[in-house]
Amino acid sequence: MTYIAGQEIMTDAAVASLSLDDKELAKEIEASVEVGENASLGKLKELGVSFKLYSHPETATIDKQAEHLGHLPGVLTKNLLLRDKKIGTFLITVLHDRPTDTKTIAKLLKLGGKANLRFADEETLEGLLKVKRGAVSALAVLNDTGNAVTLAMDKALMEQPIVNLHPLRNDRTVAIPTAALLQFVHAAGHEPTMLDFDSVPVAPPPGPVPPKEKNRSDSKNGGDKSTAVAKASASTPGQTLLGIDVSKKDNFALWYTRVITYSEMIDYYDISGCYILRPWAYSIWESIQRWLDAEIKELGVENSYFPLFVPKSVLEREKDHIEGFAPEVAWVTKSGDSDLAEPIAIRPTSETIMYPLFKKWIRSHRDLPLCLNQWSNVVRWEFKDPTPFLRSREFLWQEGHTAHATFEESQKMVMDILDLYKKVYEELLAVPVIQGRKTEMERFPGGDITTTVEAYIHGSGRSVQGATSHNLGQNFGKMFEIQYEDKAGGHAVPWQTSWGLTTRSIGVMIMAHGDDKGLVLPPRVAPKQVVVIPIVKASLSAENKAALQSYAERITTDLKAAKIRVHLDHRDNYTPGWKYNHWEQKGVPLRLEVGPMDLDKGTARMVRRDSGLKVDLAGEAVVHTVLHVLEEIQANLFAKCKAERDKKLVKVWEWKDFVPALEEKCVILTPFVNETEWEEEVKRRSREEALAGESEDARTATSAAAKTLCIPFDQPDLSPGTKCFVSGKEATCWVLWGRSY
Amino acid sequence: MTYIAGQEIMTDAAVASLSLDDKELAKEIEASVEVGENASLGKLKELGVSFKLYSHPETATIDKQAEHLGHLPGVLTKNLLLRDKKIGTFLITVLHDRPTDTKTIAKLLKLGGKANLRFADEETLEGLLKVKRGAVSALAVLNDTGNAVTLAMDKALMEQPIVNLHPLRNDRTVAIPTAALLQFVHAAGHEPTMLDFDSVPVAPPPGPVPPKEKNRSDSKNGGDKSTAVAKASASTPGQTLLGIDVSKKDNFALWYTRVITYSEMIDYYDISGCYILRPWAYSIWESIQRWLDAEIKELGVENSYFPLFVPKSVLEREKDHIEGFAPEVAWVTKSGDSDLAEPIAIRPTSETIMYPLFKKWIRSHRDLPLCLNQWSNVVRWEFKDPTPFLRSREFLWQEGHTAHATFEESQKMVMDILDLYKKVYEELLAVPVIQGRKTEMERFPGGDITTTVEAYIHGSGRSVQGATSHNLGQNFGKMFEIQYEDKAGGHAVPWQTSWGLTTRSIGVMIMAHGDDKGLVLPPRVAPKQVVVIPIVKASLSAENKAALQSYAERITTDLKAAKIRVHLDHRDNYTPGWKYNHWEQKGVPLRLEVGPMDLDKGTARMVRRDSGLKVDLAGEAVVHTVLHVLEEIQANLFAKCKAERDKKLVKVWEWKDFVPALEEKCVILTPFVNETEWEEEVKRRSREEALAGESEDARTATSAAAKTLCIPFDQPDLSPGTKCFVSGKEATCWVLWGRSY
Repeated sequence: MTYIAGQEIMTDAAVASLSLDDKELAKEIEASVEVGENASLGKLKELGVSFKLYSHPETATIDKQAEHLGHLPGVLTKNLLLRDKKIGTFLITVLHDRPTDTKTIAKLLKLGGKANLRFADEETLEGLLKVKRGAVSALAVLNDTGNAVTLAMDKALMEQPIVNLHPLRNDRTVAIPTAALLQFVHAAGHEPTMLDFDSVPVAPPPGPVPPKEKNRSDSKNGGDKSTAVAKASASTPGQTLLGIDVSKKDNFALWYTRVITYSEMIDYYDISGCYILRPWAYSIWESIQRWLDAEIKELGVENSYFPLFVPKSVLEREKDHIEGFAPEVAWVTKSGDSDLAEPIAIRPTSETIMYPLFKKWIRSHRDLPLCLNQWSNVVRWEFKDPTPFLRSREFLWQEGHTAHATFEESQKMVMDILDLYKKVYEELLAVPVIQGRKTEMERFPGGDITTTVEAYIHGSGRSVQGATSHNLGQNFGKMFEIQYEDKAGGHAVPWQTSWGLTTRSIGVMIMAHGDDKGLVLPPRVAPKQVVVIPIVKASLSAENKAALQSYAERITTDLKAAKIRVHLDHRDNYTPGWKYNHWEQKGVPLRLEVGPMDLDKGTARMVRRDSGLKVDLAGEAVVHTVLHVLEEIQANLFAKCKAERDKKLVKVWEWKDFVPALEEKCVILTPFVNETEWEEEVKRRSREEALAGESEDARTATSAAAKTLCIPFDQPDLSPGTKCFVSGKEATCWVLWGRSY
Repeated sequence: MTYIAGQEIMTDAAVASLSLDDKELAKEIEASVEVGENASLGKLKELGVSFKLYSHPETATIDKQAEHLGHLPGVLTKNLLLRDKKIGTFLITVLHDRPTDTKTIAKLLKLGGKANLRFADEETLEGLLKVKRGAVSALAVLNDTGNAVTLAMDKALMEQPIVNLHPLRNDRTVAIPTAALLQFVHAAGHEPTMLDFDSVPVAPPPGPVPPKEKNRSDSKNGGDKSTAVAKASASTPGQTLLGIDVSKKDNFALWYTRVITYSEMIDYYDISGCYILRPWAYSIWESIQRWLDAEIKELGVENSYFPLFVPKSVLEREKDHIEGFAPEVAWVTKSGDSDLAEPIAIRPTSETIMYPLFKKWIRSHRDLPLCLNQWSNVVRWEFKDPTPFLRSREFLWQEGHTAHATFEESQKMVMDILDLYKKVYEELLAVPVIQGRKTEMERFPGGDITTTVEAYIHGSGRSVQGATSHNLGQNFGKMFEIQYEDKAGGHAVPWQTSWGLTTRSIGVMIMAHGDDKGLVLPPRVAPKQVVVIPIVKASLSAENKAALQSYAERITTDLKAAKIRVHLDHRDNYTPGWKYNHWEQKGVPLRLEVGPMDLDKGTARMVRRDSGLKVDLAGEAVVHTVLHVLEEIQANLFAKCKAERDKKLVKVWEWKDFVPALEEKCVILTPFVNETEWEEEVKRRSREEALAGESEDARTATSAAAKTLCIPFDQPDLSPGTKCFVSGKEATCWVLWGRSY
């Protein structure tokens, strides 16, 4: 998959995701050379540079880049065009996590105190570099034939072997050796100025995890290596552990990518938007399934399985419904070498698959309620922002579909289910949610009422729709001619519901609790709740080693007997320190360290993942304490997350305070007239005002807009006469707004 | 979906499966009228007959018809062209289950003792009716313009509202009112002779279930209605229960269709080869999952989830492998309105999806073994004989994929899994299986060794591959460049396995144990193991009714407490007799009848589904006895099934005995040279000889051939010099042969 002009630079299957194959690549290069509009690829080829080209959704910001490209080898860069009317224009290419305020850059460029650097406007950018905003990179100097621009590059970039850059369009990324980049800019007639970020007192970029409190395992063959997470070492016999090299606060999107890959939850796949759920992630899904499945069965719902496919004609029967999904439907048109007579859709959801059967099965009021559920995969071929767990083209979920004799019964089902969804988030995943009803604009297409649980991600300041439960009314019943004989002998159409919870919930949990060391897992869903690590020093006698080993085993057995999910890590090719980091990265709630001293004293040291707190336990107290502390961690994670959320949950009465609150990453309650035109107005205006501001977070147009999350069930008092925050009309309810995934 | 010329005759969504839509239908009619080759549809249209047209695989025999069309409304017919050289030629159209030996027909036609009716040969058939063998129906008289053929129809057919007939080609079926059929044949210048099967002493066709032993529930409002399963009645307030109207022995394929639909396991779907697994079936899959999932986790296998999709280029990387699947692959080529850059396959199995990741994850010998499993859906767009559970275009399975450092380890995994598969069949589903290795010809494409568990279906005399476990050797490892550093520091390629068990297993279980009343479920997987039915007579006082009700509830609670899956059927709109039949049809292993007498005496009557045995139990013995008897039923079903199989498991030493044994529905052990060319020879010759014979079972060419099932691990003695049964060369092993699904 690599275009070889010189030697091959990357062969890892991991990077196959997003890559173009040879044929496509050749075509793109031809096109770029011939058209002449963007000759950077042709130029690289001409120079004999070996490169790899990736295709992906547009990534206009560094955040988006991190999201889509963060898993690739090589570093990402931030690229800016800055201008001082008197001094000149500068193209700045620096490591993705550098501070790029104009003051810092001016200082690094040594422009003196009088310089007044500004971001160049779009016109200047396109005029000088022939490239759109969001697609600029050092490669753009190719178009600066008049040498109007000074290229300045991060000095530290030179130490990186491979750099990823947009080849003048932001739905492609090219990976090249940094040396080749220099070769390229030279060939384009530019000599880059080097920016030495170490030379000025700016906030340091997040590097390797700083040394922690000295560990107990400071023996010769392990010792302080435990903290040198990012470096290989001759004295560490095992593999090198990659540390999370970016902080959650500084670059949330890249942090997320690192956490889910380093913890072995997710791997990337050849098809964009499709991901691999590795055992560590899938096990959490199994925990959710186990609990939720039992609960919905308690409500009288039965599991079943309906086909993956829908004929075109059936899918299109409910017009409103299909309109909501049409652009995202994946179509099967061939089997083997033969064309199918009619294209067949892969289910984006199963209403239109199930309800023709509901029509058949529901003949009498005695056939009601009909309550079915299935655990399955669905496909929505979205083009915006694929993000593991949160938005993927295929995802796993349960979808429930029920039919009832009365609206009241159906609405009770909707709400019972919504309560279960709240419990999944709050009691299993330790993430607080707000229950409410969607506005007309955000309602499920084809249904009457959509209820939702909305979570908040403190790290990004964005909200997430956690799961939805819909009252479909009689819409589908009428469309699919579901009719039954009611008790009085007349004909009636049932009231239906549908509801689903997806693997997205795992992503929300990761974002909510993870920290700069990696995952932090709530004990109730953690695949392993406790890891036991024997501290075996090289100096120990074989006899003592064996005794320590069996002591660790005994503790493990005791914990297992108490139904605690425990893992004994007795590998002898990793140091205790390595293991500490490894299991911290994977988010295991509790670590039990067992050393020779513990063996003598019959103790064990317990270390909490959430707080880092260490306590030495007497052997007989281990099981009891662990059980207790696991519950404590569960409660603590929830409380912490709720406190973070509540701090950002604000009320706004006037428009002027609205966008500033958004910029503060708040979720916002406002009195609202609840009319669709005003909702659209808020969306439009919040986006415009945010883009007009300087905020980095708002730089991507799509996500800058606020949208309604829900009309919370738990409504604050609304005194009569309270004005809507945007229309000035009388408000009808409190509505929750936020930027959202 | 119905072509309306007169009025619409069918609107049930159930029959939508197989139906052509309006446009396709119009096209077919045009074509048939214009081409003139087959004008029957045009003629129907011309006559203003309302009909429905189905498209399906070719169904040359009544068995195949039953398989593909048995679920449609309307009756199926058997159609024969018989000839007596002196008397004339007769086109016979009778109900599908009528005896059609020439003697019976001659008697019904009143031809006298001297008549010598024979099946007309293909040439005669095509000459007179212009139709191929297997596609003949009463509609063919349209082509008998010279009135050379006498049409004779089953008198009983006239009482049926709708009849399904091939419109002169056997991949289409047209459903028309029987009256319209008469109109049609009249218009074609034929006056049918009526055959009165009731007038001669022939074996009676299977009608409604014959009256059973008098039930205890013979009260006024239920009473003997309990046995009149097929008739509605004013005094039965509930719905009419459809009885299985065909015996397993007489028409296995139709019996199967009836059993799986009437028991509410399966419903049909708009897309041929896709079926709905209703809760009664899905619950059995959950039982299998629960058990098997725990067992494979015990072997150190972890669950995960890989994408549904494979890029074309990746799928095609292992040539042998893809060759095995290529014609069955469903391709996604569009999303929304846009064409995809490259077609994407839906997984037919996941080797090519997983192994690029294996390459990434397996770097060192410490990464081995890597043992993953997933529970998922796969798609194989087969065109031959879709059969619910046994062969469907989408099915559910688990697929395990492991990689090991040595062949021995990998082979141990293969065998450990095969043993689990054997246990699923024998210990859960109560179906005996034979373990063995597939021959070269039947091996999984791309792998080295395929091991299998083979089941036998007594009712059809066919074998079924129950599940397979493959040793892939290093083939995929080499193809996907999976390489790791071994202990010595060198490079090595891992040994891989893959293995899967599918929802097919449920179909095997149904076929193995079901009887003429419906399903018979092994207790270990039965969704409900016991049904409690209170016998509430109308004459009971309200007080006694309440007492009886609470007595039944107490028994139910006691059983539940003992972890028995029990259901109390307290519906008051069905008679006890109706309920008995209903739960028998659904295969519940035990019924507990609780009547007023039982209340007085503190007893309950237990009725076994497998044997019909009735025992009155003292109240305190109920739980204990039920637990015991459930185990007994489980053992009994297995023993019965094994005895049936063993009776048909024969050894054959010479070719001359081979096809006769096949005709006797045997599975056959033979000494064999085990060479592919001789295996092909057996396939060819067995098919030819079977087709040359008169056997109805062999009428369909595809399934007449014998194939190897496996080389059983449990090999009988093979004395040196024993000759291969077909080649006459020295035999190398015993091989198991049979006709197979």
